Amino acid sequence: MDKINVVKIGGSLINDEKSLNKFIIQFDSLEGKKILIHGGGKEANLWLKKLGIPVKMNKGRRITDSKTLDVITAIYGGLINKAITSKFQKIKDNYIGLSGIDGNLIYSKKRDKKETDYGFVGDIIKINTDLILNLIHKDYIPIICPLSHNKNGQILNVNADTVSTEIAIELSKKFEVNSYFCFEMKGVMGNIKEPNSLIERIDMKIYKSLLNNNIVSDGMIPKIENAFYGLQNGIKNIFIGSPEMISGETKFTKIVL
Amino acid sequence: MDKINVVKIGGSLINDEKSLNKFIIQFDSLEGKKILIHGGGKEANLWLKKLGIPVKMNKGRRITDSKTLDVITAIYGGLINKAITSKFQKIKDNYIGLSGIDGNLIYSKKRDKKETDYGFVGDIIKINTDLILNLIHKDYIPIICPLSHNKNGQILNVNADTVSTEIAIELSKKFEVNSYFCFEMKGVMGNIKEPNSLIERIDMKIYKSLLNNNIVSDGMIPKIENAFYGLQNGIKNIFIGSPEMISGETKFTKIVL
Repeated sequence: MDKINVVKIGGSLINDEKSLNKFIIQFDSLEGKKILIHGGGKEANLWLKKLGIPVKMNKGRRITDSKTLDVITAIYGGLINKAITSKFQKIKDNYIGLSGIDGNLIYSKKRDKKETDYGFVGDIIKINTDLILNLIHKDYIPIICPLSHNKNGQILNVNADTVSTEIAIELSKKFEVNSYFCFEMKGVMGNIKEPNSLIERIDMKIYKSLLNNNIVSDGMIPKIENAFYGLQNGIKNIFIGSPEMISGETKFTKIVL
Repeated sequence: MDKINVVKIGGSLINDEKSLNKFIIQFDSLEGKKILIHGGGKEANLWLKKLGIPVKMNKGRRITDSKTLDVITAIYGGLINKAITSKFQKIKDNYIGLSGIDGNLIYSKKRDKKETDYGFVGDIIKINTDLILNLIHKDYIPIICPLSHNKNGQILNVNADTVSTEIAIELSKKFEVNSYFCFEMKGVMGNIKEPNSLIERIDMKIYKSLLNNNIVSDGMIPKIENAFYGLQNGIKNIFIGSPEMISGETKFTKIVL
């Protein structure tokens, strides 16, 4: 089975020019087929603030009203996606920026109102990898931002970790998939203030113990649960850590079932 | 020789939902291979205003400082490109939004400072149609916004009419190209206040007479000159008019040498 690397970049890495440049060198050096998924929540928050639009969150998830959606679309699909792509274009001309709207890559439906109305947030119905497969077959490298659509002209915001995992799961039907989640930390930490507290391997049993002892933070819980879901659905390996884990320069967290 | 249609949409068409929806039906009905190029200056100006960034123009061309470039990148590459693409996705799933950065489609260099410093504005060095050709070969329809890059990580703003013409010229090496410039008017008007004053055919001689008699406006002059340049460099036919000209429902202006 052919191999593919699905890499997600998020957190402060995207806003910090130096870290982003480091990541770009690491990602470019990764051999074989690969795709990149990026977030951009922090940059979006800066723009919302500049525009006087309140940033509304619920349990780490964004509430996306109509004005917020326009900013998200502009910043994820335009500013960040094209800035990252142009930086990669400095190295090779086969990088191409995309969203989940293009080629019907991410078809979603607006999340039902339950306790919370998340607004223009999508729950993924189907990943259509045709466009990605056509592109990687021609040696292009897609750089994807987490925007989706409902097939009725409505753009819907989706979580970048979820997008990365769902695309990786879909690709697992045809490839052996390694999934990397890159951010500003070395991985899942036992104590966020203690650089030597990296937890190098997390299985279900360890995760439950970390949860029971309140060691993993609110933001990390969905990331780890997302990873277990990915492994249960066909992804071969999942790694969480800093960009340098790609080249093996630093240790990282490996999630296993 | 295979045929291709290169359509540019600009002006108020993009901001007006009803006009945009009409255009989308017209464009989608166009048979054969096709690509779309869109502008978005009016929407960008709205966002610059919201952000308190002054809109600076010189002879109808935008002066693009660093803050303006970020807004242009966000609005052209993100908000407008993805909004248009999602509207087309309502009809067919083979539409895909791109910029001139993606796949090195538009390589440009920063315009030299002469009398005016235009800032982050690019003069096109080379159109690389590989990505477009690969996509249309697989029946995708590219929707392209006028952003370019300098191969050194810098995004540069380019004029959408120029992008449309340069892409059409490059495609003329392999295709018979029909180039459409769609906007809110019926075409080049003898008197902008007189709906019956459409000039249906403009050659060099007629253009000179229109110029001498101050009949064509400042904004229309570069459009017509651009069209002559395109015809001299291989484009088969060039039409200027409203979206309805695509289906032949209305008259339009045809530019000929």
